[in-house]
Amino acid sequence: MIIVLRQGTPQAEIDHLTDMIVGQGISVNPIVGSDLTILGLIGDTSRVDPTQLESFQCVERIMHVAEPFKKANRMFHPGNSVIEAGGATIGGKGLAVMAGPCSVESREQITTVAKAVKAAGATVLRGGAFKPRTSPYAFQGLKYEGLELLKAAREETGLPIVSELMSPYDIERFVEDVDIIQVGARNMQNFDLLRQLGKTQKPILLKRGLSATIEEWLMSAEYIMAGGNSNVILCERGIRTFETYTRNTVDLSAVLAVKKLSHLPVVVDPSHGTGKRWMVPPMARAAIAVGADGLMVEVHNDPQHALCDGQQSITPDDFTQVMAEIRAIAQAVGRDI
Amino acid sequence: MIIVLRQGTPQAEIDHLTDMIVGQGISVNPIVGSDLTILGLIGDTSRVDPTQLESFQCVERIMHVAEPFKKANRMFHPGNSVIEAGGATIGGKGLAVMAGPCSVESREQITTVAKAVKAAGATVLRGGAFKPRTSPYAFQGLKYEGLELLKAAREETGLPIVSELMSPYDIERFVEDVDIIQVGARNMQNFDLLRQLGKTQKPILLKRGLSATIEEWLMSAEYIMAGGNSNVILCERGIRTFETYTRNTVDLSAVLAVKKLSHLPVVVDPSHGTGKRWMVPPMARAAIAVGADGLMVEVHNDPQHALCDGQQSITPDDFTQVMAEIRAIAQAVGRDI
Amino acid sequence: MIIVLRQGTPQAEIDHLTDMIVGQGISVNPIVGSDLTILGLIGDTSRVDPTQLESFQCVERIMHVAEPFKKANRMFHPGNSVIEAGGATIGGKGLAVMAGPCSVESREQITTVAKAVKAAGATVLRGGAFKPRTSPYAFQGLKYEGLELLKAAREETGLPIVSELMSPYDIERFVEDVDIIQVGARNMQNFDLLRQLGKTQKPILLKRGLSATIEEWLMSAEYIMAGGNSNVILCERGIRTFETYTRNTVDLSAVLAVKKLSHLPVVVDPSHGTGKRWMVPPMARAAIAVGADGLMVEVHNDPQHALCDGQQSITPDDFTQVMAEIRAIAQAVGRDI
Amino acid sequence: MIIVLRQGTPQAEIDHLTDMIVGQGISVNPIVGSDLTILGLIGDTSRVDPTQLESFQCVERIMHVAEPFKKANRMFHPGNSVIEAGGATIGGKGLAVMAGPCSVESREQITTVAKAVKAAGATVLRGGAFKPRTSPYAFQGLKYEGLELLKAAREETGLPIVSELMSPYDIERFVEDVDIIQVGARNMQNFDLLRQLGKTQKPILLKRGLSATIEEWLMSAEYIMAGGNSNVILCERGIRTFETYTRNTVDLSAVLAVKKLSHLPVVVDPSHGTGKRWMVPPMARAAIAVGADGLMVEVHNDPQHALCDGQQSITPDDFTQVMAEIRAIAQAVGRDI
Repeated sequence: MIIVLRQGTPQAEIDHLTDMIVGQGISVNPIVGSDLTILGLIGDTSRVDPTQLESFQCVERIMHVAEPFKKANRMFHPGNSVIEAGGATIGGKGLAVMAGPCSVESREQITTVAKAVKAAGATVLRGGAFKPRTSPYAFQGLKYEGLELLKAAREETGLPIVSELMSPYDIERFVEDVDIIQVGARNMQNFDLLRQLGKTQKPILLKRGLSATIEEWLMSAEYIMAGGNSNVILCERGIRTFETYTRNTVDLSAVLAVKKLSHLPVVVDPSHGTGKRWMVPPMARAAIAVGADGLMVEVHNDPQHALCDGQQSITPDDFTQVMAEIRAIAQAVGRDI
Repeated sequence: MIIVLRQGTPQAEIDHLTDMIVGQGISVNPIVGSDLTILGLIGDTSRVDPTQLESFQCVERIMHVAEPFKKANRMFHPGNSVIEAGGATIGGKGLAVMAGPCSVESREQITTVAKAVKAAGATVLRGGAFKPRTSPYAFQGLKYEGLELLKAAREETGLPIVSELMSPYDIERFVEDVDIIQVGARNMQNFDLLRQLGKTQKPILLKRGLSATIEEWLMSAEYIMAGGNSNVILCERGIRTFETYTRNTVDLSAVLAVKKLSHLPVVVDPSHGTGKRWMVPPMARAAIAVGADGLMVEVHNDPQHALCDGQQSITPDDFTQVMAEIRAIAQAVGRDI
Repeated sequence: MIIVLRQGTPQAEIDHLTDMIVGQGISVNPIVGSDLTILGLIGDTSRVDPTQLESFQCVERIMHVAEPFKKANRMFHPGNSVIEAGGATIGGKGLAVMAGPCSVESREQITTVAKAVKAAGATVLRGGAFKPRTSPYAFQGLKYEGLELLKAAREETGLPIVSELMSPYDIERFVEDVDIIQVGARNMQNFDLLRQLGKTQKPILLKRGLSATIEEWLMSAEYIMAGGNSNVILCERGIRTFETYTRNTVDLSAVLAVKKLSHLPVVVDPSHGTGKRWMVPPMARAAIAVGADGLMVEVHNDPQHALCDGQQSITPDDFTQVMAEIRAIAQAVGRDI
Repeated sequence: MIIVLRQGTPQAEIDHLTDMIVGQGISVNPIVGSDLTILGLIGDTSRVDPTQLESFQCVERIMHVAEPFKKANRMFHPGNSVIEAGGATIGGKGLAVMAGPCSVESREQITTVAKAVKAAGATVLRGGAFKPRTSPYAFQGLKYEGLELLKAAREETGLPIVSELMSPYDIERFVEDVDIIQVGARNMQNFDLLRQLGKTQKPILLKRGLSATIEEWLMSAEYIMAGGNSNVILCERGIRTFETYTRNTVDLSAVLAVKKLSHLPVVVDPSHGTGKRWMVPPMARAAIAVGADGLMVEVHNDPQHALCDGQQSITPDDFTQVMAEIRAIAQAVGRDI
């Protein structure tokens, strides 16, 4: 951590600040330039609160040298984390492909889709039971009934299931029912929920927030890991930019950044990322080409009658085609599928 | 709602889509142009799910003509809403000024600050008991003890109190203890929390999310109002942009937009909005000049030793000066303080 | 084009507005809803100025149904445009790979790099002679001498050359000297320059502006094409977002959008797009996987001593490796290289 | 300037890098931490090219301590710059108000508006002769005839004139004809144009680019100043964000930032900043309340028939009202008008 001091700060103030920092067990190295003076801090600065330092009148600004996350940091855990969930693995050489409908709608629907995506090569079944909808008047999901239908589909196909959790009240139920608990983009900084999930050992799929920096995303993973649950899978699902042609802007360089900064696996969701069905196959190919550990894809047997997000869902036939395409890409980048 | 059809859509598909929409009690007016055909929908389109329409192959895109929020919409409630909270009013001719420390730290601290801000003209005491911190290792607030200290400060000064809620588990306690429940920016789309708060009658201060559009913000207000609680106060606190000099970019035109689109009161938080103490007074003046219904300002008796966000807190003396400045502005724009 | 009228607009005002529009040879179809009235305009609305319509008091807002660009629009030119430049083709089945140093520095440097990238499979040599630098104190390029060195390298290798133009004063010289004229991101809306380039027949590589929407980008292409020059190649080079880990955020879905909306070829620049050398190979793979018509890559024989942008340049050896990787991807997506 | 080294960099590489830097007359202070090593550079680092440093394999990243601009920097020029232009002053205690139509359309129009805005208290007449339009098919301005009409209006009213320059070919003509040359947002990084303008002594109104950071904006001012022309006036005109309700998002905290970092005057353009006529008066009030040195406002005698941007123009009567409102605000913040 580096402190840039205000121009013309009296020595007495520098001494006062230095004493305060040294009192926390940190060494302070001053660098005195012609116009500016900076202080270099050495030691475990994760315990130093930067906002407290910034409140000193003599502090111009604080610059971070090291990343603020520890357990998620590749610096302290050089090997890739491989997460095991209901028989599927995420983060190893094999790609993880999570596919299924945005919303679970009926037993027939989820079972049909589950069988189809399994046949095409999916390794995890996705399906929404509790749906975060922007409008309070939109369909909110089948809730507990949806979970039951997902379990039935797992029973029939053997595919592990991932589904989104919206309330801390439902954690116990989800831990019992699903194989991976999804935290949606809008809850990425719902710290109360993250903290509760850190107390379980269930794999968590943590979606990147709509305008979350890579560092904030990893800090949210850190929340879960700090509680004792290191089974975190990251999911890039597009960020909000000024561009309105697509629902979001998929940030594939974030996959690279995350894999450099952290040991956690990361998958890409081209369905929410683009909001357009016809963009899903090429963006899925690009995600694998860039080095993602897998995909999360919306597949619906009848997109026109989907109760949510039909415009970004592909059919099982399309999905079979996508799998064929990414197989070739996976081979080219040395991954299995 | 307007549907733009793909070029060259066969009439049979248009008829099929039209029948489906008419079946929902909506009339359809086609406009056939040389290159494109559009369908104008008339009726209560709030029940039509746009994502379902977009999933039809023949639909190029959907354009919204009316805003998707109803209860928050000024079209159906032309007069300004005035919210009453523990003796303070928000949204009337008089300005609401909420001031106090980021975090409640001790009985002495909160009481000292409370007395000082009251003397300077604040109408509500703010103070954080549960703190949403980006890092799991940062100070998370005094929690229930913080609430007790806030109540003691209210007792001593008569100022109503506002504090942030982070978990649905604490709603009952907050309803009992505070006068206004704050929903933080990171929870603006925590729909589970919003829905629960809609079941109370407590005034809710709903902060704008870091990258929330004005429409999404009002839809989150709608979530609370749809549950039966119309006591919603909006708070603009800066949005995330590419600019990094300030913590966020305060969007004062959003105050104007919200007041045109909705009848709900809106206040501005220049402390979180800028993240810089020295920017708070001028941005507070600008907020009043543009027509905000009030302010939310961080005031700390000793910013250098604040346990959080000291760099954006002003002292009670500064606050007294700010109040003097905004009084002159308020007079210029016809508001009382 | 659709006009949404303000609620409660008197019929006389609607009639007045309608007459004005009909006077421009456009038909007007009104759709009268319960709360709102809209007007659907049919005809060649490219001649209607939306800002003029918006200035009518009765107009709430204008919604565009058709894209405002004509010559760049795939609707009126369904086949892909294939651009020929000095022997290279861009936009056909074969991928175009433009490689070379950010800045031309010396005869030896540019010739060495040119030979190396040609051997690895590049089809065009890139090299900056005039450099747009954020700081007036930074190296601004070898200018005319740089152009001479590029020509010498073309002579030796047979590779056509692309270089950035910064001033309209130099157009004549560039038309004579280079095979493709590059318009940089910061000049994407330098309309004076675009207009002048429209008068030539030289292929133009038009980079996307830092915060340009896809529509604005295509409108800038339209400026060139409207002047009579239809040889426009688009180049996605990353957009500005809140994320600061990468220099820009490469928007690969923009490649898909552009290829759907327009018939013009589009290449991707992963070097400027990410600003990080180690991200170039995987982002290059992703660009080809998504369907780009080619790449623009910075290659420098000695990145540590590059006079500009060394941090994002790869070595000739790295480039040879990149070419091997994208060959496999190209094959998987049905492209030649 | 601070260099963060990659973890585990061998001492030999550090020595090599250090020698290279010391060879440029800069001292290097290493700070060796447990996980990371950083180098603090002391001396005139404006001559060091950070991109060159970043290209060293051992360099993790570069952090800037001092601002890269010199002549525009308040650190080296503590007092406010006051610019004199045709009798008007910008940057002093008195506010500068530039008002007039987006486009000059006819002698009668510009003269009528000029007289009206002068009567209301404007100090500079604005009017576009060359118009940067997104579409090549939109009205592009009266060009040289427009300049003549502006001169006639100046003759009649005595108001100095500001108008936008688009081509370096026209600099000589503009220097002769207008009192302030405007550089539009889209040309903020047209470095060729900036460099040419630096050779004149004419006051330059430099608009902030659509997605320009404050630092980039000041670097563009530096371009002009480095050439010898220190008469630069900055103009905040809104930045591009994800919000689409307004044309742009006016960033009033940028006014504060610029006035802290630089000695140059800054005015605000609420017309382009919001794109909505009804937002202009309140945003103008807010701009003065925050501390801007003046305003730039579009005023048109007949907005409905304006040839451009009518939707954001106010009438002379509205403008008279705005002037009355900002007079009261100016008084409250200690400014004259």
